Amino acid sequence: MDSVEFRPERSQYVYTFGGADPVKRVRPGTLLTLWSEDAFNHAITSVNDVASQVIDFRYLNPQTGPFYVEGAEPGDTLAIHVVDLVPARSWGASAAIPFFGGMTSTDRTALLQQALPEATWVYEVDTAARTVGFQARFGDFEVALPLEPMLGTVGVAPAGHEVRSSLVPERFGGNMDTPEIKAGTTVFLGVNVEGALFSIGDGHYRQGEGEACGTAVEGAMNSTILVDLIKGRAPLWPRLETDDYWMIVGSSRPMEDSWRIAQLEMIRWFGELFDLHEMDAYQLLSQVAEAPIANVVDPNYSVVVKVRKSLFPAAHAFDGMHRDLRSRAATR
Amino acid sequence: MDSVEFRPERSQYVYTFGGADPVKRVRPGTLLTLWSEDAFNHAITSVNDVASQVIDFRYLNPQTGPFYVEGAEPGDTLAIHVVDLVPARSWGASAAIPFFGGMTSTDRTALLQQALPEATWVYEVDTAARTVGFQARFGDFEVALPLEPMLGTVGVAPAGHEVRSSLVPERFGGNMDTPEIKAGTTVFLGVNVEGALFSIGDGHYRQGEGEACGTAVEGAMNSTILVDLIKGRAPLWPRLETDDYWMIVGSSRPMEDSWRIAQLEMIRWFGELFDLHEMDAYQLLSQVAEAPIANVVDPNYSVVVKVRKSLFPAAHAFDGMHRDLRSRAATR
Amino acid sequence: MDSVEFRPERSQYVYTFGGADPVKRVRPGTLLTLWSEDAFNHAITSVNDVASQVIDFRYLNPQTGPFYVEGAEPGDTLAIHVVDLVPARSWGASAAIPFFGGMTSTDRTALLQQALPEATWVYEVDTAARTVGFQARFGDFEVALPLEPMLGTVGVAPAGHEVRSSLVPERFGGNMDTPEIKAGTTVFLGVNVEGALFSIGDGHYRQGEGEACGTAVEGAMNSTILVDLIKGRAPLWPRLETDDYWMIVGSSRPMEDSWRIAQLEMIRWFGELFDLHEMDAYQLLSQVAEAPIANVVDPNYSVVVKVRKSLFPAAHAFDGMHRDLRSRAATR
Amino acid sequence: MDSVEFRPERSQYVYTFGGADPVKRVRPGTLLTLWSEDAFNHAITSVNDVASQVIDFRYLNPQTGPFYVEGAEPGDTLAIHVVDLVPARSWGASAAIPFFGGMTSTDRTALLQQALPEATWVYEVDTAARTVGFQARFGDFEVALPLEPMLGTVGVAPAGHEVRSSLVPERFGGNMDTPEIKAGTTVFLGVNVEGALFSIGDGHYRQGEGEACGTAVEGAMNSTILVDLIKGRAPLWPRLETDDYWMIVGSSRPMEDSWRIAQLEMIRWFGELFDLHEMDAYQLLSQVAEAPIANVVDPNYSVVVKVRKSLFPAAHAFDGMHRDLRSRAATR
Repeated sequence: MDSVEFRPERSQYVYTFGGADPVKRVRPGTLLTLWSEDAFNHAITSVNDVASQVIDFRYLNPQTGPFYVEGAEPGDTLAIHVVDLVPARSWGASAAIPFFGGMTSTDRTALLQQALPEATWVYEVDTAARTVGFQARFGDFEVALPLEPMLGTVGVAPAGHEVRSSLVPERFGGNMDTPEIKAGTTVFLGVNVEGALFSIGDGHYRQGEGEACGTAVEGAMNSTILVDLIKGRAPLWPRLETDDYWMIVGSSRPMEDSWRIAQLEMIRWFGELFDLHEMDAYQLLSQVAEAPIANVVDPNYSVVVKVRKSLFPAAHAFDGMHRDLRSRAATR
Repeated sequence: MDSVEFRPERSQYVYTFGGADPVKRVRPGTLLTLWSEDAFNHAITSVNDVASQVIDFRYLNPQTGPFYVEGAEPGDTLAIHVVDLVPARSWGASAAIPFFGGMTSTDRTALLQQALPEATWVYEVDTAARTVGFQARFGDFEVALPLEPMLGTVGVAPAGHEVRSSLVPERFGGNMDTPEIKAGTTVFLGVNVEGALFSIGDGHYRQGEGEACGTAVEGAMNSTILVDLIKGRAPLWPRLETDDYWMIVGSSRPMEDSWRIAQLEMIRWFGELFDLHEMDAYQLLSQVAEAPIANVVDPNYSVVVKVRKSLFPAAHAFDGMHRDLRSRAATR
Repeated sequence: MDSVEFRPERSQYVYTFGGADPVKRVRPGTLLTLWSEDAFNHAITSVNDVASQVIDFRYLNPQTGPFYVEGAEPGDTLAIHVVDLVPARSWGASAAIPFFGGMTSTDRTALLQQALPEATWVYEVDTAARTVGFQARFGDFEVALPLEPMLGTVGVAPAGHEVRSSLVPERFGGNMDTPEIKAGTTVFLGVNVEGALFSIGDGHYRQGEGEACGTAVEGAMNSTILVDLIKGRAPLWPRLETDDYWMIVGSSRPMEDSWRIAQLEMIRWFGELFDLHEMDAYQLLSQVAEAPIANVVDPNYSVVVKVRKSLFPAAHAFDGMHRDLRSRAATR
Repeated sequence: MDSVEFRPERSQYVYTFGGADPVKRVRPGTLLTLWSEDAFNHAITSVNDVASQVIDFRYLNPQTGPFYVEGAEPGDTLAIHVVDLVPARSWGASAAIPFFGGMTSTDRTALLQQALPEATWVYEVDTAARTVGFQARFGDFEVALPLEPMLGTVGVAPAGHEVRSSLVPERFGGNMDTPEIKAGTTVFLGVNVEGALFSIGDGHYRQGEGEACGTAVEGAMNSTILVDLIKGRAPLWPRLETDDYWMIVGSSRPMEDSWRIAQLEMIRWFGELFDLHEMDAYQLLSQVAEAPIANVVDPNYSVVVKVRKSLFPAAHAFDGMHRDLRSRAATR
């Protein structure tokens, strides 16, 4: 198995999907060991660091990449399997940023009210207990929460020569901010440009569904990724697979459109998996789909539609690529 | 324990929250054994029954009730504990209804396109296996799905002298269509009128999150309900509690507003439960909340925000009412 | 011409559409001279009256009516022609109410931010100059604005036995809050119950499109209304006609759905008026329709789609009812 | 006065804002005479040209530009005054494109319904009568509509190194598709990159508000543009000025957010123009603003908030730049 290690210099951080030259070329089947900076660009290191004072908002959510996948052409499908995610620091941070987040007016839901109070929370990682520690900033409450590392961002270059901020979730993946992208998950993305130009970043030591305040327990991450290529068969929207679930991530506004996108793509996927008429798939999914919200804070809101595999006969999406990647990862 | 059995005559079915005289007066602490008709008003009994031909759309989602709870006054909190739900028929039905559902234009998302094809699916209940059987209508696919009975509708009379269709989810509960309302769940609703005037209905033998096509596996239901009253402390929006979760159901449009409503009410609830400042609660929930969509098909869309109790120290919402109802139900 | 004068006692104010007994029976063709209280229920009479302290929020937007129109049956069309609107007081008032309005979080767009500052503005009516006077509350700016009286609310009883707050715009008309309902406008509403049970209220001495802060220059109003009945032909949504325009008012959330509703109803109306295929009507309206927003502050947002008659050959909606009402009003 | 004429070769067409090298450098104060291709890229020339067969959807809405304005730096304000717009062909075209437009499901409002029928309409320009001729495609109806040329697209390069499709309206202007951008209008845009890199295109011979079917009467256009630069003072969102109106264009989803954006920017502008406290500006605009919808069909929906100058004392936005451009244009 080919393998690549990469830890970008600060000057190599990338803040967009598309628009950046590849940092490396990799062959399909390569195992990547990657380090990524936190979404704050390491600007926050203590509870005394107030977002509006220390963050340079032009440089948020730095990506590690992009990687040029050899042979990848528009219309192909990139399979990005998350083998392992390990926090790269002993603490993560979250912040209430003025006019950013789900429970405040924003530049889009633009209102006249004053900003919420700013505050920063730092969560210590307890590696042995596998927890992150919450400490109230306006009181004494403390609680240790399970460490559940995930990647907020996995994406490829957009279509149509667009270049999008790394804060955006879209068809090309990007900042989907769903806890479903964790060790054991395979992300299938349609390729839009030669080489696909994928990147990852935005490590979260844990995140609730919705990512209410706009920031998770943000932290630098060591990610082990196994990447592969399927010729053709590009899905319209990101498809995810684990041992237990098939999933779609839809991203748009208003949030019902994110759901509609994910639901329609799942109807199509179920048509492929089980040779179902779309009205039968629509009916069946009405009774079995789960629909957790991913984020309500990014430029597009993301919703996951997911189906538990155990309810259904065995089916092999993309010719069993996920299972294959799992087994290759296990024997690395 | 007081107990009441009630199976409405067809003439007693009620199609609104508010606007109907109570069918019975019950004391707080009463165990009710209730039968409810299915949401189609029993108009669909085979796959040959096409919704647009057999349904009288003025009479959908018949409610069993309303019940006048003695002593209930505006500002009080009604606790409706679902003890048990048992399908009252050996089959349930679901239908694709023209211009109704999440993947079609509707009277609101009003477009020029033709309606989707109509179709009806009938699911046989296998009581031994505890499954309902899906059979494709446009192919041969079959699959047995777990029987997971729930109530689509639990509500009280609205405030402000309004009378709302039983298809509406709102502050008063109503047609929330969330799989979270199942045996073991307590629903807390603010009382708006003397006697509260609660009703239930819309039994589902199972439902996916989102209720994509607009109808679950609809079926007549035998419900065992334990009702109690908390003086004052009316929540602004429906709160749910199980042994494992605290939950809020927000209902509005667009769907991000449903989430915002539920998230804000949960921030307030967490403030009460753990004496947390709202900025600390906001932060904490950002990392722990789950956010499954309930429905994307009703006049308001419903979103659940829920938190797993095991992550937190013990806390006793409404002075432990849920635990108390559980134990009373267990010893009935 | 039959004529009726009615000024309700305070005890006769009605705060809902539906759910109230008629105050009078009128025959089609009757001229009504009506007085209506302002939307604040006369709670605000000076700039020192702060909304949250003086308003009883259970009793907002009092309606004058409902009137039972003899012969009106479900499926019929009520034509309500506004002959004249004259301010009934020498001043009107507007207020910034906490968590109400378009530029603040609300009970639906529920956020954590603090309320905006409260303030009340009183506008003196200059009858001779036909102006209302704005005076800044936080500075010295003054400007006289044209007096342009309109009715915020014209509605009938809803379908399906619903009763809705007088703050709601919907299919039944209601609180549409559009400046298009002024002297010279005919409002066509589908009848849902015997007698139609229409009411009017919410006089505005002037209002901008959007009604941004949630309140116009609110004032008691003397309204002269000519009512008539068309058997059958109920429009799905409110249709308006003036000498210059055909208009539809759509009301829902999100606001694109309000527009879609109005646009679809106008496509249908154009099909009737000019015997156009719906694709031709869709195309033609794409090039000629105007689309002013009515309100972004009520429980549903309202959007008007309107078409200038002078662009088209003469056409006689509802057999020329508007023109007929105009001429009858002129000769009263 | 410097002047520049430019008609791009096909190979010079640009399909994005940002991401393209400038075709020319111009000094502030330059008069540009520009030719732009129609939004279909000239793929449609008769009613027999069906969009899905003849259009290459990768190459829509070609822009003429971008132009590098000397001295323009981030934070500056570009003033683009439309002096004159003259149709460059004797006919324009509009088309119903599958899954594109306001009355159909789309890639975002993703539903299961079949596409609407495709059709193309060609409008002959009558230069003498100054009309464009509508001819029904599914019947015999004909009507001549006033020729009212406008530009769908005026924009600069986005901030944050983004590159956006020329179909997108945003902070940087772009595909706003409002009939307000016609001869006599000045568009003020914040500069994001050195040289501003503005472009124009998407000529419409006329368009209704909402641009319901997604395409106006599209046509190649000869545009005369006078460009100037204001150091600093970049507005957050596009501001427009005519002799009669101040206007803002907000673009987002859902549509209420577009309105909120435009309303907030206008509150700020009124604060600048009349030294008003934001609560006074909010109140005043509630009574005077107009709010026509621009488009409900693009990746963002656009809403205009506008105020009639004649209601107010004279005020000179950007130190009277619009008036100055008008007078310079008149004496060219």
